Amino acid sequence: MQLDDLTDFFTNRQYHFNLNKVVLGVDIGGTFTKLSLVTPLGHIVGQEAFPTHSHNGHDDYPKRLVATSKALVNRIDSSLLGIGIGAPGCDPKTGYISYAVNLPFSAPFPIRDFFEENLCAHTALIKDSSAAALGEKMWGGAKHMDSFVLLTLGTGLGSAFYIHGQLVAGAHHLASELGHTVHIPQGRACSCGQRGCLETYVSARGLQRNLSELFATEITPSHLREVSDSDRTAEMITQAARGGDELARQALERCGVELGNALARICLQLDPEGIFLSGGLTHAGGLLLEPLQQQLQKALLPAFRNKTTVAISALGGADAGTLGAAAQVYLEQA
Amino acid sequence: MQLDDLTDFFTNRQYHFNLNKVVLGVDIGGTFTKLSLVTPLGHIVGQEAFPTHSHNGHDDYPKRLVATSKALVNRIDSSLLGIGIGAPGCDPKTGYISYAVNLPFSAPFPIRDFFEENLCAHTALIKDSSAAALGEKMWGGAKHMDSFVLLTLGTGLGSAFYIHGQLVAGAHHLASELGHTVHIPQGRACSCGQRGCLETYVSARGLQRNLSELFATEITPSHLREVSDSDRTAEMITQAARGGDELARQALERCGVELGNALARICLQLDPEGIFLSGGLTHAGGLLLEPLQQQLQKALLPAFRNKTTVAISALGGADAGTLGAAAQVYLEQA
Repeated sequence: MQLDDLTDFFTNRQYHFNLNKVVLGVDIGGTFTKLSLVTPLGHIVGQEAFPTHSHNGHDDYPKRLVATSKALVNRIDSSLLGIGIGAPGCDPKTGYISYAVNLPFSAPFPIRDFFEENLCAHTALIKDSSAAALGEKMWGGAKHMDSFVLLTLGTGLGSAFYIHGQLVAGAHHLASELGHTVHIPQGRACSCGQRGCLETYVSARGLQRNLSELFATEITPSHLREVSDSDRTAEMITQAARGGDELARQALERCGVELGNALARICLQLDPEGIFLSGGLTHAGGLLLEPLQQQLQKALLPAFRNKTTVAISALGGADAGTLGAAAQVYLEQA
Repeated sequence: MQLDDLTDFFTNRQYHFNLNKVVLGVDIGGTFTKLSLVTPLGHIVGQEAFPTHSHNGHDDYPKRLVATSKALVNRIDSSLLGIGIGAPGCDPKTGYISYAVNLPFSAPFPIRDFFEENLCAHTALIKDSSAAALGEKMWGGAKHMDSFVLLTLGTGLGSAFYIHGQLVAGAHHLASELGHTVHIPQGRACSCGQRGCLETYVSARGLQRNLSELFATEITPSHLREVSDSDRTAEMITQAARGGDELARQALERCGVELGNALARICLQLDPEGIFLSGGLTHAGGLLLEPLQQQLQKALLPAFRNKTTVAISALGGADAGTLGAAAQVYLEQA
């Protein structure tokens, strides 16, 4: 069954799924781990979230993850159709998280088998950004689109390309690492070992680094100068920008400008119908989107201007990951 | 009929086409215009070429083009199934060349109607780079590939993305302008009005500019210093590099390095099965490919290394454009 059929089934309410069953969608992020119980209509009937990194950094993350999952599943009457796990750096074929620079366990880790054994339910693994894109296609703003790109702006920058009615998996199942494409040659060092990767400018950590750079180059006062680099969260910077902090605003503007340049590259290459942004950084709203749009239009050849829709995920940044991970299970069972 | 079926028909010699008919493939380039009479098996049975820009710059290019086409068609006994025209900056839907920065006529120009009227044959218009990609899929190295990217390294840099078994046309029929994606922020001025576009480093003109830059930054002797900037052709620079000219070699190396960086971006995004290079610059062979491969592998995340095939078009740089333009006609008639 193709995704489009599935979407139509839901729209026409001629679904093949037992509505008494739910899917557990798990979104493993570099900062938070989120869990949602999702119905076939994309409704969330139960939710949990906890910080991915514990304060002392010495606990057993996989065990915490399974315990939280069990507690959530036990809270509801519906039975479990399956589990969808969205994670960065994973290999959906083998079921392993194969490289996990931002996660608190050493890769490779057999996350799929670990869940199947501990929760006795069919488990599907999917790249975090692919999950968000599937959610957007099934229940979000991309429902009627044949080509779109989704970017997750979280701790890092994830991406998914949906072209000719399907997600681009890549010939070697490696697509799509837009976050680690060189955006500024010889630029900032990245955790991947390269310099100038897009995610070192456009992500929660990129935002922190934008602000640190501004603190170095400008003398404008900011109360965030009194907070240590690692304690300045993306949320804190966004709040400060809203409250009139000029450098916090410029740090977000930098994210928008660099993202605008990156989206221009994508539009010029693939001319997609839409581009969706998901993840914590999108809470900045216009502070991010306005400079983004301005730079995007400027960097496009005239024929491309104002063609591709750029929007924040219709699923809400917070839920897109878990909804998408759940969508993968419905898709497999359809 | 899908491209794959068509290829199989040819391979199994169960083609549906009348072998007594041929297609005229026209490749309009910024430097040369090439014309080939192509059989359904991809054999060229007649060929012409002339410089796109006349010496005085005042003649009527469209008229010259039609006269050469007529002369070529009249030379053979086979009847004409149709004409395929590959050109940069064209709109296949309207049949217009809509922007043509490197061509000797003002856009928009209704090239399809002009040919249909003057040669009384069905005429199809296709972007030059898409044409080369179709040729590669039908008769070249991409025959058995489901995803590949083709770059034409001519006067400018053209591109075509073939994903999930079809060319990416784009939601607004604008894909794929890789040559005008910003490669080096605030870099060289481009004829499109932006700065730092990939084609200002990687193309015949990019090669000339690489050499001019080296003449400015280095003191190494080179007999090409005695040739004016505009007279230093890509072919001349390649010959000089082969003959031991160190700066000419470095100018080609720069093309390779920047192309390696650009291909790394494509691999990280789309993880294609293959990448094919076509066009005059590929005559440099190892002088271009070796630095390219070295930089490509360096710029990729480890998991991506040595996965995607990078090769020079199997059709030969000179014929890929006309073969591909002809392929479009066979495809339409199939």
